[in-house]
Amino acid sequence: MYSFRNDYSEGAHPRVLQALTDTNLEQTCGYGLDPRCDTARDTIRRLCAAPGADVHFLVGGTQANLVTIAALLQPYEAVIAAHTAHVNTHETGAIEATGHKVCSIFSPDGKLTPALVETVLAEHNGTEHMVAPRMVYVSDTTEIGTVYTKAELEALRRCCDAHSLYLFLDGARLGSALTSPVNDLTLPDLAALTDVFYIGGTKNGALFGEALVVNGSVPRDHFRWFMKQRGAMLAKGRLLGVQFQALLEDGLYFDMARHANDTAFRLRDGIIALGYPFPVPSPSNQQFPVLPNTVMDQLREMGYEFEVDAPVDDTHTRIRLVTSWSTPEAAVEKFLADLALCH
Amino acid sequence: MYSFRNDYSEGAHPRVLQALTDTNLEQTCGYGLDPRCDTARDTIRRLCAAPGADVHFLVGGTQANLVTIAALLQPYEAVIAAHTAHVNTHETGAIEATGHKVCSIFSPDGKLTPALVETVLAEHNGTEHMVAPRMVYVSDTTEIGTVYTKAELEALRRCCDAHSLYLFLDGARLGSALTSPVNDLTLPDLAALTDVFYIGGTKNGALFGEALVVNGSVPRDHFRWFMKQRGAMLAKGRLLGVQFQALLEDGLYFDMARHANDTAFRLRDGIIALGYPFPVPSPSNQQFPVLPNTVMDQLREMGYEFEVDAPVDDTHTRIRLVTSWSTPEAAVEKFLADLALCH
Amino acid sequence: MYSFRNDYSEGAHPRVLQALTDTNLEQTCGYGLDPRCDTARDTIRRLCAAPGADVHFLVGGTQANLVTIAALLQPYEAVIAAHTAHVNTHETGAIEATGHKVCSIFSPDGKLTPALVETVLAEHNGTEHMVAPRMVYVSDTTEIGTVYTKAELEALRRCCDAHSLYLFLDGARLGSALTSPVNDLTLPDLAALTDVFYIGGTKNGALFGEALVVNGSVPRDHFRWFMKQRGAMLAKGRLLGVQFQALLEDGLYFDMARHANDTAFRLRDGIIALGYPFPVPSPSNQQFPVLPNTVMDQLREMGYEFEVDAPVDDTHTRIRLVTSWSTPEAAVEKFLADLALCH
Amino acid sequence: MYSFRNDYSEGAHPRVLQALTDTNLEQTCGYGLDPRCDTARDTIRRLCAAPGADVHFLVGGTQANLVTIAALLQPYEAVIAAHTAHVNTHETGAIEATGHKVCSIFSPDGKLTPALVETVLAEHNGTEHMVAPRMVYVSDTTEIGTVYTKAELEALRRCCDAHSLYLFLDGARLGSALTSPVNDLTLPDLAALTDVFYIGGTKNGALFGEALVVNGSVPRDHFRWFMKQRGAMLAKGRLLGVQFQALLEDGLYFDMARHANDTAFRLRDGIIALGYPFPVPSPSNQQFPVLPNTVMDQLREMGYEFEVDAPVDDTHTRIRLVTSWSTPEAAVEKFLADLALCH
Repeated sequence: MYSFRNDYSEGAHPRVLQALTDTNLEQTCGYGLDPRCDTARDTIRRLCAAPGADVHFLVGGTQANLVTIAALLQPYEAVIAAHTAHVNTHETGAIEATGHKVCSIFSPDGKLTPALVETVLAEHNGTEHMVAPRMVYVSDTTEIGTVYTKAELEALRRCCDAHSLYLFLDGARLGSALTSPVNDLTLPDLAALTDVFYIGGTKNGALFGEALVVNGSVPRDHFRWFMKQRGAMLAKGRLLGVQFQALLEDGLYFDMARHANDTAFRLRDGIIALGYPFPVPSPSNQQFPVLPNTVMDQLREMGYEFEVDAPVDDTHTRIRLVTSWSTPEAAVEKFLADLALCH
Repeated sequence: MYSFRNDYSEGAHPRVLQALTDTNLEQTCGYGLDPRCDTARDTIRRLCAAPGADVHFLVGGTQANLVTIAALLQPYEAVIAAHTAHVNTHETGAIEATGHKVCSIFSPDGKLTPALVETVLAEHNGTEHMVAPRMVYVSDTTEIGTVYTKAELEALRRCCDAHSLYLFLDGARLGSALTSPVNDLTLPDLAALTDVFYIGGTKNGALFGEALVVNGSVPRDHFRWFMKQRGAMLAKGRLLGVQFQALLEDGLYFDMARHANDTAFRLRDGIIALGYPFPVPSPSNQQFPVLPNTVMDQLREMGYEFEVDAPVDDTHTRIRLVTSWSTPEAAVEKFLADLALCH
Repeated sequence: MYSFRNDYSEGAHPRVLQALTDTNLEQTCGYGLDPRCDTARDTIRRLCAAPGADVHFLVGGTQANLVTIAALLQPYEAVIAAHTAHVNTHETGAIEATGHKVCSIFSPDGKLTPALVETVLAEHNGTEHMVAPRMVYVSDTTEIGTVYTKAELEALRRCCDAHSLYLFLDGARLGSALTSPVNDLTLPDLAALTDVFYIGGTKNGALFGEALVVNGSVPRDHFRWFMKQRGAMLAKGRLLGVQFQALLEDGLYFDMARHANDTAFRLRDGIIALGYPFPVPSPSNQQFPVLPNTVMDQLREMGYEFEVDAPVDDTHTRIRLVTSWSTPEAAVEKFLADLALCH
Repeated sequence: MYSFRNDYSEGAHPRVLQALTDTNLEQTCGYGLDPRCDTARDTIRRLCAAPGADVHFLVGGTQANLVTIAALLQPYEAVIAAHTAHVNTHETGAIEATGHKVCSIFSPDGKLTPALVETVLAEHNGTEHMVAPRMVYVSDTTEIGTVYTKAELEALRRCCDAHSLYLFLDGARLGSALTSPVNDLTLPDLAALTDVFYIGGTKNGALFGEALVVNGSVPRDHFRWFMKQRGAMLAKGRLLGVQFQALLEDGLYFDMARHANDTAFRLRDGIIALGYPFPVPSPSNQQFPVLPNTVMDQLREMGYEFEVDAPVDDTHTRIRLVTSWSTPEAAVEKFLADLALCH
């Protein structure tokens, strides 16, 4: 049975793997200073219309988050995040382990707004007795599958400018966001509107890897020092350059994300047709239907894998189904057929 | 005009200062290992009926909080606290600077309950992807003047036992709590019900100092290492022993706290009589009346000092009035008379 | 021209890459809890004759070092290391960034001995005013190519037992060490004599990866919490399991290391034959000849790449030449022929 | 018997205590923002001829050191110190606990020189693989009683300027240094030559307290945030202002230090006259004679207290004798007479 547990259950897209194989015996220097990384950096700068951006390649999302936050914030500064934010919930206190407070605030849809940001700011009096919020952390898609619009991100940018805050966008699932039907953002928009964002590879067809794009007037000069100090500098850095070049040179990245979204929507529509509700609409590759526990258990007995998002009541549970670049359409149809058998 | 800004606006009770003067030229070894500290430790153990307790003297509350949390928690463990908790709001991220997350939860009265603690626990799945909540932090009195009952603390203790949590009680204003009309806790209760608590001196008649009582099966052996590493070991440690002995040997500590409470209640009752509301009742030495902004401004023009707690609406503000061991009754009466002149 | 800059200048051994390709489309759960990792763990436990060992896979050496030290030491504890140790010099303060002091001591050959360890211990008085050294960190091969004998490691183990110290062996270049002519240690010896050691993949034919073997009575239960908190848990963890299984299931790891050593020795012998000295003998895949600066410059002009280890005097420099599993014998012969042309 | 264990064995000079008593019932705001602190700040700026300096009051030396280093250095930056430096040996890793490496180097007399600083710099290659040394930490007097001359400090300043290093002078025993016969530095010199230094009160007649003078183009704006975050902001901050004003307003500070030195020199000369050697000459209030162990034991049996500095050989030990503002001349004569009886 197909696993809908996550979008990193397989290895890499075959073309990514092929690129690694093709370049395998090249000799390069280490740590991301090689020509393969430089090529990928140029590609990213071009796609982002950001010729002055720094591009750093890291292995995973938690690394990208903790290194960026440690590199940009002074020790007394804090980051504002939605209560569902990955940095707030699913990184074992990685941000606090770098010394920084995460100021979280309840967000019904996983997104931050200027009003939410300003609520957090209003709780801080600007004196030495409190941390100084200095960064807004958002993710696109969010941890619950929602997607930012350009207007929303522009509003956050204005809010950040008004309050001297950095805007950092976690793009672990950026492919799914940028190919979502509700999206109207582009890579150049992201580069223009955020101070730092990343293009997530791990969850969209790479073996691993996140490409961090650093813009704006943030502390930049010693970013690589922070990477090294936090164990986030890959010795054979060119593995990241090779992969991102393969992902981005001709649109493979977006093709894969579109496929993930399309299969997710087919899953959603089929489940709705079977009468199960989706209280939180998600226009991306994570779907959160509410199923009777009896149905959930039958799916599991059939061998399906997925995560439980939260219990809804004593007899119902919201589960999470995730599709990826590699989800076969047939697996979706089979799941829907099997679900129809449950009761 | 008298300042109601805080309960540490003056120096020490004259008897405390006298004790420092009387012992001034004694030679002792440093760092709290001297006979004066030993005597005070014995006094505290006796008053707490806790012969096996460790007693450590620290200079201030933020120090006591950060050292205790750093000493008791492993790096992946977190502390649960009310959203108003001092460790969550007023220590400039001191806890996070030791690497630990503060899991805060909204509490209407500044107190934690088993239900609130379990709400936080329910948000954590026990896996390596999330911090492990391991300590409950409460303060008595709380930051908004409320006071724990014995039944409430017993319930928290049971909750902590059920979930393998440490219970840490910040007693920066413990004198005011233990002499509050609503209190039914004793020092032996605190020693029996908490793993660590402290008897706050700074806010009740000492020049400075908090006496930390460490009980239960918490990591204890290297507590002094944590103190030294965090800059929290006073060279002339005997200054703390001398002060706590003076405070506790014959009840001065409680006499002073009772005075602070009594003057606070006279202030409260007088303000109520003038028609101003107290939306959050406080049975201790911090009082939070809501005044029209015009009245607040007139008080300030008269020279009164106090802190603003929060705006209530466009024309009203909740202020904080704090009394102490040294607040003269005449100052209270003068304030009430002056308030009666405002309009 | 061939680069002798490092042993991670290429990708992976083709059989490692093939194993990744063969398993690419399998679905597994993430974070190293999949069957591929379990198989590799079993292989490692079997090769180490350590059925009770925990095996964790990490992406790189700095990660392995900082996570292990953070996981094993309490905040007031320190690690003892040679002044040349990677953790002391080449990790941008990664260990200090976890809060721990590295107590370094000068070692002429990059190795620690009981005498050196005890010199460090003697500088610490066991009180709360000083850090408590609690771990001995060694690397095999060392950063300057030397190799521990079994007798040396046994002596360190006895020293560690006598002083309640953990023994942690950084095996980033363990393959080269275990196949060195001077080596008499085995994987079971390492598992028996150290508390933690790792089998380095990055520098011996893997794309990346270090396999950490945790033994003995060290704090173990929450090791994965430390990994996650430090950004050292790979989402597609099975990539590490697949690679280590390919490296270790039939001896490829040792065959590659032997090749690296053999080409290094051919290089060494050829350089000696040309009359250049090796003041520090190295029985492994890093070689440190002293060349006249004129010769060094000519090699560079020819296109050779290598690192400078240290200037020796105004006209001579000690350089570092590193061979790997992939160094062609022809490249070595060509280098020697070219060196013979220098003057 | 008199204790020569330390210079903080007593309380405060009576005039300091009197000043605390005289101001005891004044109401002031907290945290060092009160008029008493402002007055002391003005006095210090005037004595230092540094009208633009920031002055911060902290309770103790470890606090002053760790807060200053945390406030001035970025996370990848390190501090250079002599191997005997307090920050390297006697603060339980307090600096590392803030995330910073201490790069220590052997110094025969406890002082740093440009040559020693440059030796450390030469071991660092300026890349992201190594920490970036950014501060020179010295103490005056040093931990072994030696004293900097103006020429020495000027040379360090030039060295720091040449290499973009901050110069931080720990003045825990600054009084003894500035009144030493070998001293030719003044407070204005210190303010001009260092970026940060402090005037130590704890070891020269205050109950506690260090006055930190921050000059030069160091990060200054958020120093108080670092103080608060590290638990180093005293609630009743005015206690520090009152004490420093009493110490400095009419030269009491220097009178006391001169007395400490004079009694130390009398002790030294008397011991020399009895035939015991001082291998490390100290022109300040710490003296390090070498005694036969039999003599050392007899002194202890008589009741004298002092610290052991280091064993010299199997039968001799270097001890440390410390005098203070309060050491009676009679106690010194008695000690010398008693020593004459030992054999």
